[in-house]
Amino acid sequence: MIEHQLDVQAPSHQYPIYIGSHIINQFDLYAPHIGQKTFIVTNPTIAAHYLTPLQQMLSEHQIEHTAILLSDGEQYKNHDSLNQIYDALLTHHADRKSTIIALGGGVIGDTAGFAAATYQRGIAFVQVPTTLLSQVDSSVGGKTAINHTLGKNMIGAFYQPKAVIADLNTLNTLPERELSAGMAEVIKYALLGDAAFLQWLEQHMAALMAKDATLLAQAVYHCCQMKADIVAQDEKEQGVRALLNLGHTFGHAIETEMGYGTWLHGEAVSAGMVLAAKLSQQLGCLNAEDVQRVEHLLTQAHLPIAPPKFAYPKWLAHMSHDKKVQNGQMRFVTLTKLGKAVISQIDNTDLLQRSLQDYLA
Amino acid sequence: MIEHQLDVQAPSHQYPIYIGSHIINQFDLYAPHIGQKTFIVTNPTIAAHYLTPLQQMLSEHQIEHTAILLSDGEQYKNHDSLNQIYDALLTHHADRKSTIIALGGGVIGDTAGFAAATYQRGIAFVQVPTTLLSQVDSSVGGKTAINHTLGKNMIGAFYQPKAVIADLNTLNTLPERELSAGMAEVIKYALLGDAAFLQWLEQHMAALMAKDATLLAQAVYHCCQMKADIVAQDEKEQGVRALLNLGHTFGHAIETEMGYGTWLHGEAVSAGMVLAAKLSQQLGCLNAEDVQRVEHLLTQAHLPIAPPKFAYPKWLAHMSHDKKVQNGQMRFVTLTKLGKAVISQIDNTDLLQRSLQDYLA
Repeated sequence: MIEHQLDVQAPSHQYPIYIGSHIINQFDLYAPHIGQKTFIVTNPTIAAHYLTPLQQMLSEHQIEHTAILLSDGEQYKNHDSLNQIYDALLTHHADRKSTIIALGGGVIGDTAGFAAATYQRGIAFVQVPTTLLSQVDSSVGGKTAINHTLGKNMIGAFYQPKAVIADLNTLNTLPERELSAGMAEVIKYALLGDAAFLQWLEQHMAALMAKDATLLAQAVYHCCQMKADIVAQDEKEQGVRALLNLGHTFGHAIETEMGYGTWLHGEAVSAGMVLAAKLSQQLGCLNAEDVQRVEHLLTQAHLPIAPPKFAYPKWLAHMSHDKKVQNGQMRFVTLTKLGKAVISQIDNTDLLQRSLQDYLA
Repeated sequence: MIEHQLDVQAPSHQYPIYIGSHIINQFDLYAPHIGQKTFIVTNPTIAAHYLTPLQQMLSEHQIEHTAILLSDGEQYKNHDSLNQIYDALLTHHADRKSTIIALGGGVIGDTAGFAAATYQRGIAFVQVPTTLLSQVDSSVGGKTAINHTLGKNMIGAFYQPKAVIADLNTLNTLPERELSAGMAEVIKYALLGDAAFLQWLEQHMAALMAKDATLLAQAVYHCCQMKADIVAQDEKEQGVRALLNLGHTFGHAIETEMGYGTWLHGEAVSAGMVLAAKLSQQLGCLNAEDVQRVEHLLTQAHLPIAPPKFAYPKWLAHMSHDKKVQNGQMRFVTLTKLGKAVISQIDNTDLLQRSLQDYLA
């Protein structure tokens, strides 16, 4: 049953997000967006739960389908996995009318989306996010990418899906660690742009972590709505969209330093948001109580609030690859208050070092 | 001196093509389109002629520059070269305001353009085509790509440059074989859409092959104008733009079968255009005299008119990967008369086999 439908009005392309329960095999949601030949990109963990029913649905409607199973984990969001998709597409004679169905979390969506963006200069794809993180964030808005050993998400494209089909029921099979990781992105939306939603989350975090279906649906819908609004304003991250990177500059440094997959992306973003809050405190915008409030909410979601310790030059080196760097200047998303984010260029690296001081090796 | 300026009115982005002599180091043509940090992608052959002056020009204007030298040849239009560019960009901290300058022929332009399309989800690039082929065709219109072992240009993006700077003087250092290869694309424009231009080429081919500067400038300008018109109508090859692939379905099969770089792209397109003419004859649209006229003009440009011999199933296998295939149906660009091309779906493979019959192993 579809509980919510949103439309993303991106300048390059408009498309629907369907949010509901037991909609993952609802053919009429797919039908307008797919060709005669489909390629389901997923991983073995997700496939065990959802692949066979999806294949049956496609077969029943005489749609050809080929499954492409990538290894599971952020460390596989790389060129080898991308090439595995290209090889399968070419071997099975995918053409420009073929469609990729990205069935899984952020790694699957980002990799499959980038394959769709670049195979024969672009074919259609449908996002079927099966994790909280991908439902609230990565499946919406057309950011596709793979990692490079020197930096996360360094190779990619802005390329919108034809549709997003978010089945809340898939969250029932989600491991708790991944639920937490997704909750980091939910909390991010509240911190960057919605103080009332922050209060709502503080009030309901225990129930959300207990997978209360009604509350989860509300949270997913609210985050998608915020994301859709931001993407409509700024599809290609020339301005306001960069605010969605709250915690991500620090978070990407953690992921790159620790090796992709050691920390989940959402965990790194969680510690990264604490660091962004501390930097905002250094800038005189937040007080100690605000920072504690951020830490408390993240802790309620069973998320780490302290990054791993490593040396300051390593932080600097990783963060100098950040995509917000412009003409060599580092830029961070900081908070002017809880619920309001801005982009700050940080020329004074003392401030930055002080924000990190408790965590330097 | 700029002799001609054209504007490409692509839906996604509008940009100038400058055509002239001794304009490769004219800074005011670059200035509006580049950031503080530039990356010149080229190869050792081109670098020997044009890299140092370009670097001097950039240095004089306090623009940072890094040269990235790819190996020379179609066989290097692949993921390894692409990754060489990514590595250099990351190592030298390229950011979203950095600019790639593609200095060279089609291989350089396609590979560097695809790197620009995908590095950090897209950075600016300027095309500086130094071959006839790239000046009349590949540098204009935003098709970027690399080859895959299973098919040519299979991985790529539609991504427009910020400007094209075509210096006709660079043709003076162009080897004759490459001049011929470029002339194949010039002849292509005449065959697909301009019977008067075909007559003009027949009249002037000897002088063009002798590098008559005035005539070459006219030919380059005319082809760029035709290309700009087509790209303005159909940036992403949903319709009319596919006509620019005249001879390319057969040509790509030749390149893939022989190994990239054995035949130059323009040589393969030349033999491919003869095959397209023969297919058009099979379809009852051209007569034997028309086909001979095509062969004669290509021969005048010192181009091959017969493909290498290989077995029919191999032709079919290579052509089934063509990007014009839709829902499994092969589609070819054919001629209704000399100067007028259409897309034809070929269901009757007997016709196809008969077009190839003289060249089957």
